[in-house]
Amino acid sequence: MPDLARRLAVARGDEPADLVIRGGRVFSAFTREWLEGDLAIADGYVAGLGDYEGAETLDASGRYAVPGFIDAHMHLESSKLLVDEFAKLVLPLGTTAVVADPHEIANVLGTDGVHWLADLCTDLPLDVFFMASSCVPASAFESPRRPLLPGDLEGLLRRRRVLGLAEMMNFPGVVAGSESELEKLGLPGATHVDGHAPSLLDKGLNAYAAAGIRSDHEMSTIEEGRQRLRVGMWVLIREASGARNLHELLPLVHEFGPHRLAFCTDDREPEHIAEDGHVNSMVRDAVAAGIAPEDALVMASLNAATWHGLRDLGALAPGYQADVLVLPDLESFVPETVLKAGREIEEIARPEVPEWVKHTVRVRPLSTNDFAIPWEGDGRARVIGIVPDQIVTESLADEPSVLDGRVQSDPDRDLLKIAVVERHLGTGRIGLGLVRGFRLRSGAIASTVAHDAHNAIVVGVKDDDMLRAVRRLSETGGGVVVIDRGIVRAELKLPVAGLVSDASLDEVIADSRACVEAAHALGCELPSPFQTMAFLALSVIPQLKITDRGLVDVDRFELVPLRA
Amino acid sequence: MPDLARRLAVARGDEPADLVIRGGRVFSAFTREWLEGDLAIADGYVAGLGDYEGAETLDASGRYAVPGFIDAHMHLESSKLLVDEFAKLVLPLGTTAVVADPHEIANVLGTDGVHWLADLCTDLPLDVFFMASSCVPASAFESPRRPLLPGDLEGLLRRRRVLGLAEMMNFPGVVAGSESELEKLGLPGATHVDGHAPSLLDKGLNAYAAAGIRSDHEMSTIEEGRQRLRVGMWVLIREASGARNLHELLPLVHEFGPHRLAFCTDDREPEHIAEDGHVNSMVRDAVAAGIAPEDALVMASLNAATWHGLRDLGALAPGYQADVLVLPDLESFVPETVLKAGREIEEIARPEVPEWVKHTVRVRPLSTNDFAIPWEGDGRARVIGIVPDQIVTESLADEPSVLDGRVQSDPDRDLLKIAVVERHLGTGRIGLGLVRGFRLRSGAIASTVAHDAHNAIVVGVKDDDMLRAVRRLSETGGGVVVIDRGIVRAELKLPVAGLVSDASLDEVIADSRACVEAAHALGCELPSPFQTMAFLALSVIPQLKITDRGLVDVDRFELVPLRA
Repeated sequence: MPDLARRLAVARGDEPADLVIRGGRVFSAFTREWLEGDLAIADGYVAGLGDYEGAETLDASGRYAVPGFIDAHMHLESSKLLVDEFAKLVLPLGTTAVVADPHEIANVLGTDGVHWLADLCTDLPLDVFFMASSCVPASAFESPRRPLLPGDLEGLLRRRRVLGLAEMMNFPGVVAGSESELEKLGLPGATHVDGHAPSLLDKGLNAYAAAGIRSDHEMSTIEEGRQRLRVGMWVLIREASGARNLHELLPLVHEFGPHRLAFCTDDREPEHIAEDGHVNSMVRDAVAAGIAPEDALVMASLNAATWHGLRDLGALAPGYQADVLVLPDLESFVPETVLKAGREIEEIARPEVPEWVKHTVRVRPLSTNDFAIPWEGDGRARVIGIVPDQIVTESLADEPSVLDGRVQSDPDRDLLKIAVVERHLGTGRIGLGLVRGFRLRSGAIASTVAHDAHNAIVVGVKDDDMLRAVRRLSETGGGVVVIDRGIVRAELKLPVAGLVSDASLDEVIADSRACVEAAHALGCELPSPFQTMAFLALSVIPQLKITDRGLVDVDRFELVPLRA
Repeated sequence: MPDLARRLAVARGDEPADLVIRGGRVFSAFTREWLEGDLAIADGYVAGLGDYEGAETLDASGRYAVPGFIDAHMHLESSKLLVDEFAKLVLPLGTTAVVADPHEIANVLGTDGVHWLADLCTDLPLDVFFMASSCVPASAFESPRRPLLPGDLEGLLRRRRVLGLAEMMNFPGVVAGSESELEKLGLPGATHVDGHAPSLLDKGLNAYAAAGIRSDHEMSTIEEGRQRLRVGMWVLIREASGARNLHELLPLVHEFGPHRLAFCTDDREPEHIAEDGHVNSMVRDAVAAGIAPEDALVMASLNAATWHGLRDLGALAPGYQADVLVLPDLESFVPETVLKAGREIEEIARPEVPEWVKHTVRVRPLSTNDFAIPWEGDGRARVIGIVPDQIVTESLADEPSVLDGRVQSDPDRDLLKIAVVERHLGTGRIGLGLVRGFRLRSGAIASTVAHDAHNAIVVGVKDDDMLRAVRRLSETGGGVVVIDRGIVRAELKLPVAGLVSDASLDEVIADSRACVEAAHALGCELPSPFQTMAFLALSVIPQLKITDRGLVDVDRFELVPLRA
């Protein structure tokens, strides 16, 4: 181990460091103190803090050196960027490591897609760790290209940077003791398991924890957070684009201290990251809300590393990887300098994207008839009710507008038709329903980003625009599209698995904004209509969702008819 | 997994628990709160806390249910008891798991001895985990039967209950980047490593931590504790019979909270445990010294489990093993009831002790001449200075009493001769020196318990009594003996490796007390003369020590002559 011997020589002060960061206050994640001294870096690792000399010196006078931020749970695909572009975006914001659940691409391309994505990350200056996607499909109500079976997971768990089993979204299955879910939990390598159990409390939560699941990021109330801590689960506080829980959960820090709390972004849109930041935005917002900077910093670094057993990350201490942020203040949390393994970030190469990860949208030829919803007599229909800024929905009921025995979208009452069309195998399976909250006056919006199976989801006023929107997605290989009176008003092409762009951040953001503006032009008032729509097919988030198999009552965990 | 399915059914409340603990306040190790509810236990695990029914009920009204205590670092052999007897002693005191470094038996019997000891523990109701002894010998100045080589360690690390590498006592070697020590740290399975670095500070400590060593239990000052926490090392607060650091280190809890602090007993004599307690005595003393009971409890349970990665131990929460103590109050910390994996402790079977672990004392025939220390002219000699209640010594210098060109013990000045005789291979190698602090007026005391190589150590006034003492150890297969004027005044036989008795606790304590009384009758005033003597051969604890190879200046880490 010549590397280690040299690192020890640097630590002892017998050899000069590669780099010394001098004059700043250095954060001790273990004691939550600010220490003074030279931070010596050798071969990408911290050698020591003290009185050191180095081949190079970085002046950090009046500044703060803190460990790089770690995103405890996220889905790379939600950034809509290829990983090189994602790394270029988040590294300058201070995120130096992420723990990714690749279940979006897994739903579309199976384990081959996961291995391809993981291979892309090997040489990145961003540390990307993976969890093996435990729930593909998220439930039996969803239709991925093919399910990941326990054997698939076993294969993934063998990879070096796969840390454990990703969010166990089928929490009703786990709680009920479903044989297939317990089989996954019993796999070799599956001792480290992330949870996903929105609203689960009391005895149900006891059962979920008793199954060995020791984290959650789906809490939206302080009581959910308290109960999770008490049963020994780590609380991963999430601030996604469509689900923001930071302010609700921050009181946990006051109640119990920052221990066993970490930050995660889960699903963040590229424009959200570009405008607001990444993990650093959570640190900033937490501090602005009255959390001590030291507590927020430890949640953003060491705690995430500890939960995931990343023993060399999350602190500026001897033997830890030198992922260092130099911060000008403790308010903005936008780093002045970011060092990854002791070096400034250099050019990141653009990877080649093979053809086989594109062209994944296969829809059986459809007609407007496929979007027809027959309705006889009176009575009320179930309606998916959008909850702004949340991925949970309400289960509403209202009388549909009916014409010629068929349910119609009714913009005046904000009752729009919604459909999910199976797009992996061309089965032509389609789920139809009603949604309230989009306020479209005309046209249709559609996307192949529709968690988790990522079939084609479409909301519209007229059936022919809905049909046109799905056809367009099929033509382009997927993405987001806004149609009005048969014409494409805006689109964001996501040719990689129908989920991810191969364009630059700027192009993605420009196209994404154009889509939002086009939707707004059609009357929609939601700040992120496509983000909101993308979670309406996720059958494991309460209350009422829709998949290609129909409406799902998530609380009862069963398919339900449109008629209420 | 039928067990897990049943546990989940109990957690849900769909099936009755095996046992419900009702009416008590239940400690949440994660939030350091007291919770109310029924603690449901199924198949040895906690299923949940809430409103539960069970086949059996334990009334804990007005009492406190807390997780079993875990000893984060200890040597089983120091109890001088076989493990069944040790378990019978500590389980009622609330210790339900220990992490043992078997380096005493490893010095005498190699890996065969370790495997034998580990096999003995498999079916115990006490959970015994092991660390692979990293330093056999503790340094090149000590003579075990044979050294443990990296290949031996690799074999040990493959065992299921071996968690990592035990205390890296050769801290000067690690800091200096010694190839052999770095080779051990690079072994597969050696990612989890306990430290041992008394008095190491600043750059030396940085190097030690940079090598990946992340705990220590050898601190005797608060500043040592602070520095260790800052470099990311866990502080295992030790209260051994001969080295007591609890009160010195408790202020760390006030400064930084209880995080990354745990308790350990290291080396506790059987009478110490019987009279004062085990881990529970540290909890009691910490609380008496002003530490919040909740902080002390978490240090005694969850923190030790967390450091060692024992994911199912250390808390009363769903999925954790039901090691439960019912405490009548939060002062004495003597449990009223102890449940191990949900059951009261039953009879523990006495194991058979094979002949090959006995008869390990092999000394070359000696004469009084072997104890002679030639001395010419004036000048001062190095003298080992005992520090009461510590295993560190002072390096003193004084003029020896000389007769006929040979150094003599001088009881009037409390300057006694000390010798260490190699006893594994019969080489006849002998180290000779002087010690101050025993205050013997007559006779000799000797022992085959002499850390870590466990050669025969003897302190005496007359050479013939010293010789007689070593011969007696050879005759009995080892132990502790007090000789005066050629006659055995008291002895404690330790036939198992010369370290451990195969008798009952009561017999061991009676014989041990008799030995101490006999030493006191000879003038010694030390409370635990044999405990003190046992560490005088440990060449990795500052400052001046003695082995069969001679005097060791531990700070300079080299053999030094008697002449100062």
